[in-house]
Amino acid sequence: MSIFSGLSAFPVTPADEQGIVDCDLMGRLVERLAARDVSSIGILGSTGGYMYLSTQERKRALESAIEAAGSKPVVAGVGALRSSDVCEYTKHAEQAGAAGVLLAPVSYLPLTDADVTSLFEDAYESIGLPICFYNNPGTTHFNLSEQLLVRLAERKLIDAVKNPPPADLDYDSQLARLATRVPAEFSAGYSGDAMIASAIKAGSDSWYSVVAGTLPDLAVDLWNARKDHSRLLELDSALDPLWSLFNDYGGIRVMYEVVGMLGLGSVKLPRPLLPLSTDACEQIELALASINVLD
Amino acid sequence: MSIFSGLSAFPVTPADEQGIVDCDLMGRLVERLAARDVSSIGILGSTGGYMYLSTQERKRALESAIEAAGSKPVVAGVGALRSSDVCEYTKHAEQAGAAGVLLAPVSYLPLTDADVTSLFEDAYESIGLPICFYNNPGTTHFNLSEQLLVRLAERKLIDAVKNPPPADLDYDSQLARLATRVPAEFSAGYSGDAMIASAIKAGSDSWYSVVAGTLPDLAVDLWNARKDHSRLLELDSALDPLWSLFNDYGGIRVMYEVVGMLGLGSVKLPRPLLPLSTDACEQIELALASINVLD
Repeated sequence: MSIFSGLSAFPVTPADEQGIVDCDLMGRLVERLAARDVSSIGILGSTGGYMYLSTQERKRALESAIEAAGSKPVVAGVGALRSSDVCEYTKHAEQAGAAGVLLAPVSYLPLTDADVTSLFEDAYESIGLPICFYNNPGTTHFNLSEQLLVRLAERKLIDAVKNPPPADLDYDSQLARLATRVPAEFSAGYSGDAMIASAIKAGSDSWYSVVAGTLPDLAVDLWNARKDHSRLLELDSALDPLWSLFNDYGGIRVMYEVVGMLGLGSVKLPRPLLPLSTDACEQIELALASINVLD
Repeated sequence: MSIFSGLSAFPVTPADEQGIVDCDLMGRLVERLAARDVSSIGILGSTGGYMYLSTQERKRALESAIEAAGSKPVVAGVGALRSSDVCEYTKHAEQAGAAGVLLAPVSYLPLTDADVTSLFEDAYESIGLPICFYNNPGTTHFNLSEQLLVRLAERKLIDAVKNPPPADLDYDSQLARLATRVPAEFSAGYSGDAMIASAIKAGSDSWYSVVAGTLPDLAVDLWNARKDHSRLLELDSALDPLWSLFNDYGGIRVMYEVVGMLGLGSVKLPRPLLPLSTDACEQIELALASINVLD
């Protein structure tokens, strides 16, 4: 089974105003996840703020997370604007003991398909670890065609994809199309917590989850109900108040507030990303209370 | 007159595959511009690949450019994802002798108006230099409303704006609306070389120019014809073959090829941004020959 299959939990990365990572708190957040029934822990994804950290701090965060994860596999975000930086991160992830890497085609100038192909070729040649195409056009602004995805998968440059919800929300058709065109061992999974029940129901190989990084029990229950669709939908409906806030404010901004509300530690997104308003935080507290997460 | 008014020329930043800047070549490219009739030299804009360089290399590039520019004012791109990094770059630019800074609201997670306001507040408090809002939604993915622009200008947090072509290409109306709402000394200018004749004709205070960074004479002629509209349009029409390639491939990718064609030095965009194809380069050579730039 692919290292990318199953439920992957993405914790926040705690850092101070200058971007110095609090490795002790990082370790505690990861230990807490490692004790739960998640398949892997995803470090330095969008939730982990990878693009906002220096090379040195990314390395420190990953090393402390891998140490705290024990035998639980860690997948590491290695996206960067320069291919030479991506390869520095892939090599470091391999040396540090990551089980796989997540590579997003982060852009400033718009990227062509040829550019992105070269990025995955360079990353593939740099390491022996499996690579997941971290497809998130909302942050990378690269629109991955199914044609390019299949070409990279056929060439074995990638072993998995983390897709956002399909534009038409038709997970069944997208998974069926992919299944006929990629190698059998390829892992096709999704992010997008607020829509994830539909992806799970459609047979997604994995769930790359923001909520699981901070509220792992909720996500584990949902993922473990994947063979029982009525239970799955019942659990998902109960989370509607939370998903509604994810849609309004973005799951990542919400989760940075939740870490503090749970008393796990004080974490902030880097400025200029401001904390949510008092009003929004009150809504989050109400939503957490409604699902019995807060006392 | 604002330091941002007039023709600002944006050269490429020469760097090797690991992102180490060739400061000698950087100096020669800037000296060449300083000898021309441009109002300022814009270092580390999008053309200068600022987002692809490390903190140290950005500082080296700027210092060598300011030294080579002599008495010609240098404006420095200071955009970064973290406000703390932006403030490091603004302070460095001031210490190094820049005349002003260009600040783009670079994003990974989408930014709100409140986030961007905090970014410009932090930058303003960090230095005494004038600040230009580097508005380029094609790369930053932040859509600046005229309302927010006016609010920042009224508060004197910014002294200028570098706008992309208006969606409706109605430069006259946009400039007229702004003129009634911003302080008299505010400088409203444009990028977008292929459309710039319309902006100049409409009375834009400045032209932030990609082409001027490598082919300054063409841009100086165009800018200096701003009071003579028939001459302006005649000169602009002659450049149609070049503008057509800018539209097809992006002005920045074209200019990195032109530097080599002119024998100024070997420069490359950072991977994964690939060089243009042989076919595209032949088209560029034909376009340059048609405007008597190549022998």
